[in-house]
Amino acid sequence: MTTTSTRLGELVDRFGGQLIGSPDITVIGIAPLSDADHHSITFLSNSKLRHQASSTRAAALILTESDYAQVSQDYAGACIIAPNPYVYFARAAQYFASLVAIPPALGIHPTAWVSPHAVVAATASIGPHVSIDAEAVVGEDVVIKAGTVIGRGVSIGDNTLLHGNVSVYDHCIIGAQCIIHSGAVIGADGFGFANERGQWIKIPQTGRVVIGDRVEIGANTSIDRGALADTVIENGVILDNQIQIGHNCHIGENTAMAGCVGVAGSAKIGKNCTFGGAAMVLGHLTIVDNVHISSASMVSRSILEPGQYTGFYPLAKNADWEKSAAIVRNLSGLREKIRQLEKTIKTLTEKSS
Amino acid sequence: MTTTSTRLGELVDRFGGQLIGSPDITVIGIAPLSDADHHSITFLSNSKLRHQASSTRAAALILTESDYAQVSQDYAGACIIAPNPYVYFARAAQYFASLVAIPPALGIHPTAWVSPHAVVAATASIGPHVSIDAEAVVGEDVVIKAGTVIGRGVSIGDNTLLHGNVSVYDHCIIGAQCIIHSGAVIGADGFGFANERGQWIKIPQTGRVVIGDRVEIGANTSIDRGALADTVIENGVILDNQIQIGHNCHIGENTAMAGCVGVAGSAKIGKNCTFGGAAMVLGHLTIVDNVHISSASMVSRSILEPGQYTGFYPLAKNADWEKSAAIVRNLSGLREKIRQLEKTIKTLTEKSS
Amino acid sequence: MTTTSTRLGELVDRFGGQLIGSPDITVIGIAPLSDADHHSITFLSNSKLRHQASSTRAAALILTESDYAQVSQDYAGACIIAPNPYVYFARAAQYFASLVAIPPALGIHPTAWVSPHAVVAATASIGPHVSIDAEAVVGEDVVIKAGTVIGRGVSIGDNTLLHGNVSVYDHCIIGAQCIIHSGAVIGADGFGFANERGQWIKIPQTGRVVIGDRVEIGANTSIDRGALADTVIENGVILDNQIQIGHNCHIGENTAMAGCVGVAGSAKIGKNCTFGGAAMVLGHLTIVDNVHISSASMVSRSILEPGQYTGFYPLAKNADWEKSAAIVRNLSGLREKIRQLEKTIKTLTEKSS
Repeated sequence: MTTTSTRLGELVDRFGGQLIGSPDITVIGIAPLSDADHHSITFLSNSKLRHQASSTRAAALILTESDYAQVSQDYAGACIIAPNPYVYFARAAQYFASLVAIPPALGIHPTAWVSPHAVVAATASIGPHVSIDAEAVVGEDVVIKAGTVIGRGVSIGDNTLLHGNVSVYDHCIIGAQCIIHSGAVIGADGFGFANERGQWIKIPQTGRVVIGDRVEIGANTSIDRGALADTVIENGVILDNQIQIGHNCHIGENTAMAGCVGVAGSAKIGKNCTFGGAAMVLGHLTIVDNVHISSASMVSRSILEPGQYTGFYPLAKNADWEKSAAIVRNLSGLREKIRQLEKTIKTLTEKSS
Repeated sequence: MTTTSTRLGELVDRFGGQLIGSPDITVIGIAPLSDADHHSITFLSNSKLRHQASSTRAAALILTESDYAQVSQDYAGACIIAPNPYVYFARAAQYFASLVAIPPALGIHPTAWVSPHAVVAATASIGPHVSIDAEAVVGEDVVIKAGTVIGRGVSIGDNTLLHGNVSVYDHCIIGAQCIIHSGAVIGADGFGFANERGQWIKIPQTGRVVIGDRVEIGANTSIDRGALADTVIENGVILDNQIQIGHNCHIGENTAMAGCVGVAGSAKIGKNCTFGGAAMVLGHLTIVDNVHISSASMVSRSILEPGQYTGFYPLAKNADWEKSAAIVRNLSGLREKIRQLEKTIKTLTEKSS
Repeated sequence: MTTTSTRLGELVDRFGGQLIGSPDITVIGIAPLSDADHHSITFLSNSKLRHQASSTRAAALILTESDYAQVSQDYAGACIIAPNPYVYFARAAQYFASLVAIPPALGIHPTAWVSPHAVVAATASIGPHVSIDAEAVVGEDVVIKAGTVIGRGVSIGDNTLLHGNVSVYDHCIIGAQCIIHSGAVIGADGFGFANERGQWIKIPQTGRVVIGDRVEIGANTSIDRGALADTVIENGVILDNQIQIGHNCHIGENTAMAGCVGVAGSAKIGKNCTFGGAAMVLGHLTIVDNVHISSASMVSRSILEPGQYTGFYPLAKNADWEKSAAIVRNLSGLREKIRQLEKTIKTLTEKSS
């Protein structure tokens, strides 16, 4: 992979921060403290690693003002002082990645199929074997990679990137600056059926999925369309891989979900929430803003107070688990024993007094 | 989206029910009580919402005879009396959806690849970039959307719909009137290996997946082929998204599974069962008819009696969970304390008597 | 399906073992004890089934020396004595499957798109609608089925099989003799973001996925690329369907994971481990060699000692679970009661002595 060197002055011009040292020092990439060599800039995002920062061989160090006060006692190299070094790292890494990125081929690949009734911006890049159905609208600088299927009437905002083999069903709306990974399915039917003497009668799912701007959707994640109203994913939401979002869910701005999370239909989830991997949410619940659900935890009731919530069985050696699980199976027996003891002791106490 | 109006008389002709009011009242859609306006018909499927029904602005109301007796005291609009208003809603909604549906383009899209040794009905619709391998048989009125891959010798029954980017492996059988959503994988190899001094030796998976009629399979769901015999999904089964069905499973008629359920190999599941989201079933188990497994519950033994079964750790604020989890880790210590207490009290009681 | 008969002598020549009986006995397949007829060879891999083996109608029986000593008292048919009959079964079944396998069409299908800057071996088979981007290298005897997308600079080792609709992102490395099932996504971005006042800033994921030889990856499984370094899957690893492997994970040789497992980022997992279905592993953990995690168990801390570990809530009838869950929610109350009892009894005991 080619790399291109950058001056520290260029970084500060782009991303701010106070430069201590020469703006003409050049770096060819950004690396964590543990890996950085003298060609790289590195960053200190965790004050506990100050000693590591002091002895870094990196060409420069991004750190907070308070860490600088400490680290600069032992370290005389170049620094960029910034309020959030980890965010600075993210932006600088994006910049370094952009320097070596290969621009996508503009236009429609000869093996793609685009309906004559679709509208594709001239600046979009449509890869091999892509299908774009009638009335779809594909915005400026959109990139759609090989094998992705865009349904009828879909709208895709500017600068959005769809990787290969994504499926977007009819009439779904995807905002600008989104990234959707391979295998993701946007807008499949929600799981809605009426039961008539045992047999399931399908309820047509006529809502859409409406996705805001700056949303990232992971590989093999599914977001179902609404039954009548829409399923809504607000701006800035990030979803990892293998996630399932049921019909008519509403996920608030900047909420983040790690891999394998499942959310049943009609759940209403607030802003700035986080869900650990494989957390599960039942349907028709409300979760307010700033709720944090631990991994592998099952949310079976609405959560109306911000905070961290957890519910998974603690791991143990199998033999120990066997014992504790046997007791859990009969916890009411244990409680009954305690009640009996309390009674007996009451009698004894009365006797003895 | 265009809509088309329908007379109440037309609905009753199609779906039965007793009409109270003029058959010439027209409606353009069906909506839940909370959303219905005077262009829509609505339905009362939950008697607790009778007061909402009485004051509906909808053009007509579907409800049961007993609800009609109550609601008609305050409500003078048109009604359709039917034994199961929710089922009536499902059928009417299907009908309204059919009025605005755009019929699929008949025939084979020029970018599709169909083996000269496959048989595709003239009424089928084969979308862009579809592949259909030799000896496959595609029935009447089948719709296969863009990018779907049909293996050698696959059979697809009449009126079945496969959305885009579905994968069906060689020799699998799919019945009539099924719907299979994008990203679903039917017939991948089961997870069968012998272990030779640490190394895994693959056991070829030579069975098929055999799917009945009226089965719906959700997005990114996987159903593995059998090792020697077949994996069988009976008529009327409905599977939501992100489900994993292991090799040689047998799932009985009309059983329903919500998203993220996992079923290990050779499980035998009865008819009319339901599985909540992320329920897990170990392999080689038997579950009889009419068993209902709650979400996030792990079935580790056969279930031979119908009923509702549950097993997940209750959610709590993280600090409370930390406390309870610490006790769960040492439940046998707690039980031992109780035993000691019982002993001591026995001694005390004997002394005091 | 055609089958082809084989002499027992041929099997012993290929796979070893001591033949008792005529090498000219012919069989047309291998089947488990319960299904084998007189055209098949069968195997005894579980000594508890000796009685079934003694009365088998199969043409021949594969079994261990010690089982032979017992079974041969009642059974006079042909035998192959081998140290691991189940492994022998696997190899023989592979051989029987190879006899009826239809060889893939060599060369590049006319509907595939292969970049002029990719290198594809002449012995490879590239299916319909496959895309292979620039600088990709596809080895000898590789089979890539319909709709699969191979990114820029990807390398695929000899004899590897990719089923349809697989997605491999740029620069990932796949070893030799691997099998990757439909819907698998190799190399999507890891879930790495910095948080700036609520908004998520993407950290570019510039590492790769590096997969060794003889790895099998199930349907709809996702393996994310590393953030800076690589995600590594060592030789002989087997992953079932619907698995999620986060960025920068390292999975040791011959480790096996059943369906729906999730592994968060930067977990380091040893060799020869097994994970039951839906087991979950938090990020940045270390799990040593020979650790076995039960299904539906959550690994929230490093495991530094080999053994079997479990942690799931035991299933119960819903009413019983309701009771036990209520007590679990208030276990510290229960413990407090026990403390009170202990105190009271101490007082009583002191009084009475």
